[in-house]
Amino acid sequence: MSNRQNCDSGSLSALELFERVTIQGDKVRSLKAAEAPKDEIDTAVRLLLSLKLMYKATTGQDYKAGSPPTDFTPVNNAPALAEDDDFVDPWTVQTSSAKGVDYDKLIVRFGSSKVDKELISRIERVTGQKPHHFLRRGIFFSHRDMNQILDAYENKKPFYLYTGRGPSSEAMHVGHLIPFIFTKWLQEVFDIPLVIQLTDDEKYLWKDLTVKRANEYAIENAKDIIACGFNINKTFIFSDLDYLGMSPGFYKNIVKIQKHVTFNQVKGIFGFTDSDCIGKISFPAIQAAPSFSSTFPQIFKGKEDIQCLIPCAIDQDPYFRMTRDVAPRLGYPKPALLHSIFFPALQGAQTKMSASDPNSSIFLTDTPKQIKTKINKHAFSGGKDTIEEHRKYGGNCDVDVSYMYLTFFLEDDDKLEQLKQDYTSGALLTGELKKALIETLQPLIAAHQERRKQVTNEMVLLGC
Amino acid sequence: MSNRQNCDSGSLSALELFERVTIQGDKVRSLKAAEAPKDEIDTAVRLLLSLKLMYKATTGQDYKAGSPPTDFTPVNNAPALAEDDDFVDPWTVQTSSAKGVDYDKLIVRFGSSKVDKELISRIERVTGQKPHHFLRRGIFFSHRDMNQILDAYENKKPFYLYTGRGPSSEAMHVGHLIPFIFTKWLQEVFDIPLVIQLTDDEKYLWKDLTVKRANEYAIENAKDIIACGFNINKTFIFSDLDYLGMSPGFYKNIVKIQKHVTFNQVKGIFGFTDSDCIGKISFPAIQAAPSFSSTFPQIFKGKEDIQCLIPCAIDQDPYFRMTRDVAPRLGYPKPALLHSIFFPALQGAQTKMSASDPNSSIFLTDTPKQIKTKINKHAFSGGKDTIEEHRKYGGNCDVDVSYMYLTFFLEDDDKLEQLKQDYTSGALLTGELKKALIETLQPLIAAHQERRKQVTNEMVLLGC
Repeated sequence: MSNRQNCDSGSLSALELFERVTIQGDKVRSLKAAEAPKDEIDTAVRLLLSLKLMYKATTGQDYKAGSPPTDFTPVNNAPALAEDDDFVDPWTVQTSSAKGVDYDKLIVRFGSSKVDKELISRIERVTGQKPHHFLRRGIFFSHRDMNQILDAYENKKPFYLYTGRGPSSEAMHVGHLIPFIFTKWLQEVFDIPLVIQLTDDEKYLWKDLTVKRANEYAIENAKDIIACGFNINKTFIFSDLDYLGMSPGFYKNIVKIQKHVTFNQVKGIFGFTDSDCIGKISFPAIQAAPSFSSTFPQIFKGKEDIQCLIPCAIDQDPYFRMTRDVAPRLGYPKPALLHSIFFPALQGAQTKMSASDPNSSIFLTDTPKQIKTKINKHAFSGGKDTIEEHRKYGGNCDVDVSYMYLTFFLEDDDKLEQLKQDYTSGALLTGELKKALIETLQPLIAAHQERRKQVTNEMVLLGC
Repeated sequence: MSNRQNCDSGSLSALELFERVTIQGDKVRSLKAAEAPKDEIDTAVRLLLSLKLMYKATTGQDYKAGSPPTDFTPVNNAPALAEDDDFVDPWTVQTSSAKGVDYDKLIVRFGSSKVDKELISRIERVTGQKPHHFLRRGIFFSHRDMNQILDAYENKKPFYLYTGRGPSSEAMHVGHLIPFIFTKWLQEVFDIPLVIQLTDDEKYLWKDLTVKRANEYAIENAKDIIACGFNINKTFIFSDLDYLGMSPGFYKNIVKIQKHVTFNQVKGIFGFTDSDCIGKISFPAIQAAPSFSSTFPQIFKGKEDIQCLIPCAIDQDPYFRMTRDVAPRLGYPKPALLHSIFFPALQGAQTKMSASDPNSSIFLTDTPKQIKTKINKHAFSGGKDTIEEHRKYGGNCDVDVSYMYLTFFLEDDDKLEQLKQDYTSGALLTGELKKALIETLQPLIAAHQERRKQVTNEMVLLGC
C-alpha cells in the first residue's frame, strides 16, 4: 500500500494539478501587482508554465481558469448549468424540461461514457444473457470503465458489486428499487459478491434526525432491500453507524481517503461551504470507502486489489468521481460505474420521486387502492385535453409519467411498444394507459410486500 | 439525548452567537454600502442589536469584532499573540522568553482558571492526601471546573479520567510522562476508571506515515504508558485505528460531535485552511469523543452522564474548549480539565521538548551514559560564565533547564529548596546542579525500562 503524502507534482492527480495551477496563477498575479523583483516573477511564471504543461499532459486538456478537469467537474457550478437549466447533485435534481434531465449533456458534463449498442452487445456476448430491459431501454444510460469489468469477467478475475441507500424515512418508494432490481440482475449474471451500504450517518448529518432514529430507518429499509431477493450467500448489507464500530478495515480506509481529499476539493465537488458542519465535509470518504475491497476483510480475506462495480443513480456520481481520483494514490483500483437516470415524480419528470412528498411517490407500503388513486389522480399525463383531440392528435409519451413508469416496470417489450404506438396514435386514452400501469404495479408491489413480511419474520427469528 | 439541528438563537452557544453577530454585522455593512431601502437596513440593524444583547446575556461580555468569547478564544490568531510573542497550539509551542511561556497570560487568553492555593487546599481536604508535587509546584497550573469534580467526589457521584497521546514515533521522552505520572496519582487518589487514547489516526493524517506504521507506534507507546503502573482493573488504553472498528459507541459520538461543529469553528480554533485535508478538519471530533462516557459502553454500561476529568498539557485545550461548547447540545456533561505547563527542551524553555529532535530530548530508552552526556552537553544553564562570577552572583533558576527538570522529577521538597538556594547564592556550581539532575533521572528511567520490559513480556504472553 502506498500512502504518499508529500508527492511531487509528477504524481499529482488532475484535480490537484488544477489546484496548483490556480494557486500559482494567483501568486504570479499578486507578485506582478506588488511589483516584485523581476527574478522572482520570472521564476514564478516558469513554474506556472511547467504546471500548465503537466496539467495538459495529465488531462489532455488546456488549463482553463474556473473549469476543473472533466473527469472531475464540480457539479453545482458547472458552466453548462445556466445554459440548460438542469441541476443535479446528490441532494437535488431539478430541470425545467418536462422530458426530464438532458442525460446526453450530463454525460458530457460528468465526463462519463454512454451505454451504447456496442457495450450492450458485448455484455450479451460475454455473459450469454439477454441484457436487462434497464440496459436495453436506456435506464442505465452511462458508465465508467464497464469494459474493464467485462475484461475481468472474461479473464475470470474477481470483482464485486457495491450499491447503497440513504435511509431518510421508514418508507421506500418504487423509484428506490431501481438500483436494487438492476443490481440483483448483475449479481445473478456475474455470480459475484455484493455489498450494500445504508448511510444512516449521512441522514443523521443532513436531516433533523437523532442517531437512533436514523439507525432505525436503516433497519426498516434493509427489510425492503433484502426483499429484492439477492443471493444471501454473497450479499452483505450494513449500516454505517453499526458497521463502522465492528469492522477492522472500514475506518482505516476512511481515514486514508480523508488524508487525500482537501476541503477545496469537496467544496468544488459537493458545494460545501464554511458554515457546513465537519461531519458533512468528511462524509464523502465514508461513501467512498466501500469501493475498496479492503473495507471488507471478512469477505475478501484481506485482498486489496479486487475491483468494484457500482450501479447507482447518476446523482451519486460526484462521490465516485472523487473516489476514482483518490484510488490510484492509495494503490487501489478505481471503481467502475453504471449510472441510471432518475425515477420521475408522479407530477412529472422535472424532479425525481421523493419520499418526503407523499403525493409525488408510490410507496412500497401502498395498498392496491392507494396505487390506483395516486396514479389516476397525480400521474402527469401526456394526453390531450379532450377525448376528441386525443383521438385526433394522440398522446405524448416523452412527457407522460405513466408511460415512463411502464418503461421501468413492464418487462414485456412487445406490449410496451404496442402501448406506445396506440397512445401516440390516439387509439389508447390516458385512462387506459394509466390502467396498464396500475395493473403492472399492483401485483409487483403486492409480491414485494409478501417477501418483505417473510424477511421481517426471518429477522425476528434470528433475534435482530 | 437532544440533537437539535435547527435550534433558534435562544439556545445557541457563545461561539455560535459570536458567529451570528459577526455575520449579521457584515450584512448590515453590505446593505448600507449597497444603499438598500431604509426598512431593510433598519430590520437588519434591529436583529444585530438583539443578537448582541443575547451575546452579552450568554457570555457576560460585550461583543467585540475579532475577539470570540473567552471560553472559546481562537488560539492561533488571538490578539494577545503579537504582544507577548507566545505561540501555543496543539502542534507548536514557541516563545521568545527563556523563562518559557507566560502561563498567567495564557490563562487569561484561554479563559481557564488558575490552580490556586485555595483549590489545592480543597483537593487535600477532600481527598485526605497530600497534593502531588505537580500541583504544589504549579506544573498543573490551570483548570476548568475542577471544583465540580471535587463536589462529585464528595457526593460519591461517579466520574472518570481521560488522557492520551499522539504516537508520532517509537520513542517517548521524559516530558511525555508528565500527564501520565499525574493521571496515575489522580487515579490512585480518586479510585476511578481511566481511558487513554492513542491518536494514531491523527499522526497518520499529519505526518508522512502509513496507517500501519502509525498503528505500530501506538503499540510501542502503549508499552511505555502501561509501564507507568495504572490500576489495570480500571484502565482502558486504545488506539483510534483499532478501537473505532470495534466499539458500538465511539463512532456514534464522533458523528454527533461532527454534526455540531462547523468548518468556520475549527478554522477559528485550530487554524485549518481550505487546503487542509478533510481528515484533519474532522479529526477534532475524534479527540473530543472520549470525553463522553457513552463512547465506552463496555465500561460505563451505557450511562451517558458520567463526567470526565482530563489532565493534559495546556496546548491540548483547544480540543476541549470545542468539546465543552458542544457537550450541552448533545445532552452530555462538559469535561473538566487540569492543564500542565510544557516540558521544556534541553536547550531552553523557549520551546517544548520534541521527540523529533534527539538532542532536545531525554528518551525513555536512553542509557545512564546517554542521560549524563545529554544533560552535561545540552541542558541550558542559568549559571554564570566563570566559576568566579558564579560564586559571586549566583545562578538563575528561572532559566536553568536542569533546575526546571528537577522541579518535575525530584519529589523531595526540602532537597529541591536547598538546591535552589545554593544555586542562587552561588554555593552550588552548574556542574553540581546537573549532577543532581543526572542522579535523579538515571534511576527513574532505569526503573521505567525495567517495568516496560515486564509489560512487553506480558503482552507477548497474551499474544498481542
